[in-house]
Amino acid sequence: MTDVEGTAGWAEAAVREHAAEAQKPSREEQVLERIDRARRRKARVKEEHITMAHGSGGKATQSLIEAIFLEAFRNPLLEPLEDGAVLGVGSRRLAFTTDSYVVSPLFFPGGDIGDLAVNGTVNDLSVCGSRPLYLSAGFILEEGFPVDDLRRVTASMARAAAEAGVRIVTGDTKVVQRGKADGCYVNTAGVGLIERPVSLSAAGARPGDAVIVSGPIGEHGVTIMLARGELDIEADLVSDTAPLNGLVSALLDACADVPADARPDARSAVDSDAPWDVPPDARQGAVRCLRDATRGGVATILNEIAHASGVAVVVEEDAIPVRPGVRGACELLGIDPLYVACEGRLVAVVDGSAADTALAALRGHPLGEGAALVGHVKDDPPGLVLLKTGFGGTRIVDLLVGDPLPRIC
Amino acid sequence: MTDVEGTAGWAEAAVREHAAEAQKPSREEQVLERIDRARRRKARVKEEHITMAHGSGGKATQSLIEAIFLEAFRNPLLEPLEDGAVLGVGSRRLAFTTDSYVVSPLFFPGGDIGDLAVNGTVNDLSVCGSRPLYLSAGFILEEGFPVDDLRRVTASMARAAAEAGVRIVTGDTKVVQRGKADGCYVNTAGVGLIERPVSLSAAGARPGDAVIVSGPIGEHGVTIMLARGELDIEADLVSDTAPLNGLVSALLDACADVPADARPDARSAVDSDAPWDVPPDARQGAVRCLRDATRGGVATILNEIAHASGVAVVVEEDAIPVRPGVRGACELLGIDPLYVACEGRLVAVVDGSAADTALAALRGHPLGEGAALVGHVKDDPPGLVLLKTGFGGTRIVDLLVGDPLPRIC
Repeated sequence: MTDVEGTAGWAEAAVREHAAEAQKPSREEQVLERIDRARRRKARVKEEHITMAHGSGGKATQSLIEAIFLEAFRNPLLEPLEDGAVLGVGSRRLAFTTDSYVVSPLFFPGGDIGDLAVNGTVNDLSVCGSRPLYLSAGFILEEGFPVDDLRRVTASMARAAAEAGVRIVTGDTKVVQRGKADGCYVNTAGVGLIERPVSLSAAGARPGDAVIVSGPIGEHGVTIMLARGELDIEADLVSDTAPLNGLVSALLDACADVPADARPDARSAVDSDAPWDVPPDARQGAVRCLRDATRGGVATILNEIAHASGVAVVVEEDAIPVRPGVRGACELLGIDPLYVACEGRLVAVVDGSAADTALAALRGHPLGEGAALVGHVKDDPPGLVLLKTGFGGTRIVDLLVGDPLPRIC
Repeated sequence: MTDVEGTAGWAEAAVREHAAEAQKPSREEQVLERIDRARRRKARVKEEHITMAHGSGGKATQSLIEAIFLEAFRNPLLEPLEDGAVLGVGSRRLAFTTDSYVVSPLFFPGGDIGDLAVNGTVNDLSVCGSRPLYLSAGFILEEGFPVDDLRRVTASMARAAAEAGVRIVTGDTKVVQRGKADGCYVNTAGVGLIERPVSLSAAGARPGDAVIVSGPIGEHGVTIMLARGELDIEADLVSDTAPLNGLVSALLDACADVPADARPDARSAVDSDAPWDVPPDARQGAVRCLRDATRGGVATILNEIAHASGVAVVVEEDAIPVRPGVRGACELLGIDPLYVACEGRLVAVVDGSAADTALAALRGHPLGEGAALVGHVKDDPPGLVLLKTGFGGTRIVDLLVGDPLPRIC
């Protein structure tokens, strides 16, 4: 049960800290060391063919990105592998990001592929600390796709763009033969302007930081699963798809004046090794890192932060907000809500001294009413996410293996 | 034969000017008027389902763009429907564009979906007058796609990016089930910086301007058709896929000092109604409009220019460079090379006084050795493209109906 080599996922990677097991510290240390060793290995894609797991957002996706895409395209702007790239244009900093959407079904309670595609890119721009401004829209349509459905999708995109205050300024349409797509795929890329002197990064977390989620998790993923009708579960759930730029603004505004660098363990406020032109006033403030928890859920985001920052992230299971409908569906499906996608929830890592300010700012916004402090950043064990369970145990929350929820975005 | 109502395409829209027919001017006028009326009608998508023609780049694509996408997303930056949007960021102008690539087969003589996706977006940025800088890459992979093929595609993208001097800075990967894609689709979006005081637009052509193509046309499209192996034709052809930023730079440099505004019919040099923040030094110079002739070929580009500028474009059939292999294949396929895609050819509309300078600049660049002056811009009939054939006749070259060459990019 504690053998996690190679295949750690879901609840497999369990390391119990029960008092009864306190006599076996070396076993636990061995496990941690083996995980650490496995992670430091150069990423490889062992499979000869693409599998659904390569699209899960989990381990296989990470290997694909590192071994194929990063290997081929390597440059300092791509290397941080954040949700968007930060570009210096003159004295301005821009964020630039892209996502393709292949969600099935195209229409689901609370949204559709259209608003998902707009909100997703708006959110990726927002968590870079930028004000989302301009979007592109690329459509791949399957021959035979109903034109009325396309009208619904574009109307939904237009509404979402208006709500987020962005404009769709350029686009493209391709058509493929029947059976060569699944109705409609949408790609959006986006450009945002970084107007604040912030530098947000998954590598920015420090011991003592607080970990916050902006509301109940897993609603989007479970809604999609139920919308497929493959399960005989009735739950009154809708996708949480929403544009997070307003919420992010509220958070960054509130935390702008928190003296984050007073901490004795603070790193240099300005990262002079930044791969882009950081204007002189850009600094790491009280907000270290923001992410929207999509594919792979909150667990994946926390792993990326732990890994990139070389810190431990310790979360309290009981503190994580999960609606009963989501919890029930997850239990029936045998999946952990921590791995289920949200499309309108923020994970924020903030200086410990700013935790209350951040929580209050999030809760003061309609999209952050259910915000909760779910954990803290610690020194040890670096690179790992630990979950303190309701029963007093601790288990490792590793990256996802396989893809139990394909095509949710 | 001269009845072109509704369905004008290929060679159907023929209006002969033979001396023998000179006694029927009213017939010709009627035809022109009916075409004009049809074009001014509000675009509608009559079909209930998407057809391959909606992806052709021709009439159906145009209707789809105007009736669905422009209708839903309408804003001043999208409205020009150029190859990219021009954005004002501070005192800088940026170009932003996107294209999805669904070419079949993925690998073909002279290139593959990877370099096509990089070059295509580099070219769209270039013809906006910008220096291409940053690209995003979004992959939609079909379950079962060979990982080695993905490696080939990404290696090809990396080489193309290096050649064009751009960096792939952000990306995304989605995987869909077997039978829900065709191996691999790639979306690239791009950001470029407009460093020159130019304002290029399909609406910028004026009577007296010269129309130039940068080399032999139709090679990409015919190569793809032959690579599918559906035809028993052997021709030693390779795709013309290439990054055009260097060629565009050479052209703009050479024409920068041509006094274009001395023409009596010159419009205002600075378009004060421009939908973006045009810095005060931006002006329409001797180069009016640049386009890369992809889907729909040179004929489609010229129609867009004629329509947007309210001018006639008159081209000489014998002046259009077409390699014998392309001409032969087109004859067997029953298609006109004017409608066949290039992926490394420029269509340039320049002030008549700059024609020689422009031709010399293009011919001095390895990618423009075969540049040719193919026609001129006239007042009348506005909105139409006329082809003077080798036999002394004239025919209307209309937008494409249907899609004789699906999925060539």
